[in-house]
Amino acid sequence: MIRLFVTPDLAAGAELALDEGQSRYLVAVMRLAVGDELLAFNGRDGEWRARVASVGKRQVVLTIAAQARPQAGGPDLDLVVALVKRARLETIVEKAAELGARRVRPVITERTNADHTRVDRLNAIAVEAAEQTGRLDVPQVLEPVKLDRLLADWEDGRRLLFCDESGDTAPALLALGGQAAGPWAILIGPEGGFSPRERDILRALPFATPAGLGPRILRADTAAISALTLWQAALGDWRN
Amino acid sequence: MIRLFVTPDLAAGAELALDEGQSRYLVAVMRLAVGDELLAFNGRDGEWRARVASVGKRQVVLTIAAQARPQAGGPDLDLVVALVKRARLETIVEKAAELGARRVRPVITERTNADHTRVDRLNAIAVEAAEQTGRLDVPQVLEPVKLDRLLADWEDGRRLLFCDESGDTAPALLALGGQAAGPWAILIGPEGGFSPRERDILRALPFATPAGLGPRILRADTAAISALTLWQAALGDWRN
Repeated sequence: MIRLFVTPDLAAGAELALDEGQSRYLVAVMRLAVGDELLAFNGRDGEWRARVASVGKRQVVLTIAAQARPQAGGPDLDLVVALVKRARLETIVEKAAELGARRVRPVITERTNADHTRVDRLNAIAVEAAEQTGRLDVPQVLEPVKLDRLLADWEDGRRLLFCDESGDTAPALLALGGQAAGPWAILIGPEGGFSPRERDILRALPFATPAGLGPRILRADTAAISALTLWQAALGDWRN
Repeated sequence: MIRLFVTPDLAAGAELALDEGQSRYLVAVMRLAVGDELLAFNGRDGEWRARVASVGKRQVVLTIAAQARPQAGGPDLDLVVALVKRARLETIVEKAAELGARRVRPVITERTNADHTRVDRLNAIAVEAAEQTGRLDVPQVLEPVKLDRLLADWEDGRRLLFCDESGDTAPALLALGGQAAGPWAILIGPEGGFSPRERDILRALPFATPAGLGPRILRADTAAISALTLWQAALGDWRN
């Protein structure tokens, strides 16, 4: 069934007028008609069964019926990823949504060669991926910041899995063994790797755990997906 | 440094005339000139330092210098994946190369809706990914077969990690715990899932281990990358 992320509150009997983009999508692409059913969620009120009440050229109106699932959050996991080329960054956002990250934070490192990104476009990708993967919230893509600044302002109590391609690091699964769940972030470097200065800083951070991702060189998107997977399997909601 | 997969034997002092495609790539894209160094491997003789000996419009000749790394194989891991749309299947082949699979076998299942693929194109992607990821062999992409046929002809002694999205399966990492390394295959279904008949057959196979990949719905490429990652971390060459 189609799942739609909406912003208004959801409650039994509510009428919900969709914006032009979503209305066009439902009518022109998905061919929904009056009476058809779908699911709606807003990240706060759980997931609700809804029915198409009216179809106009630019506006579809839904009637909200019954709650299908109560709101539930996934683990408190951020993905911090160096800015990489647009197509790979879009893949990373899509996969972060599927793999249950709560936020995606692009960072600028010394060897980052892409220096801008369209955060609005990335957030649209996050919404679409959240709709398809069945989660009840949408990961938020934040504005890029410099890595040094992010580390200087690091949030108390959040641990950092620092994916280190230098080859002398404990394997990620071993590094995560025995660690507490709770707030974490995963850090993925640019395709040229971290600079020696950055690596020294990262290795000295009391909240950081360095981790290796095998003997081969991974592209940034692969490294992000692999690290998210191992974290979810070791500490997250893939354990049950 | 550029890594190039070649087919002839590699030995100190050998001269190697590259085909037109590789020659054009080195000259027009990578701007190599006489005297420049690169690495060559063929999947049999390890990795060798090579030098550009001559540059013609359609033919670059290399001189092979010294061996940089002896031949070494990764784990004996196949990825069996339902035919999915072209872009996602290409991503899967690229990632299978990065994550150390030895073979990729597309299969046709009851709910597969893509029914053909260009295996030559997928093998070219595997070569390029193997060059970039630093491995000493190239995973082979095989011709698609029907799932029933593949299971009927299953190779003795190869275990199968059957990624089952039905939700009542042990998590993959738990399912892999205590299993022996040795020959394995990972099976990823189509985006519509396996049919109930296929799932019954798979669950009854003595060589198959069903495994879950978390509470969210994953696209086929994500499922493939996550399963390869967990297998490598639990039983493969990510353990050291």
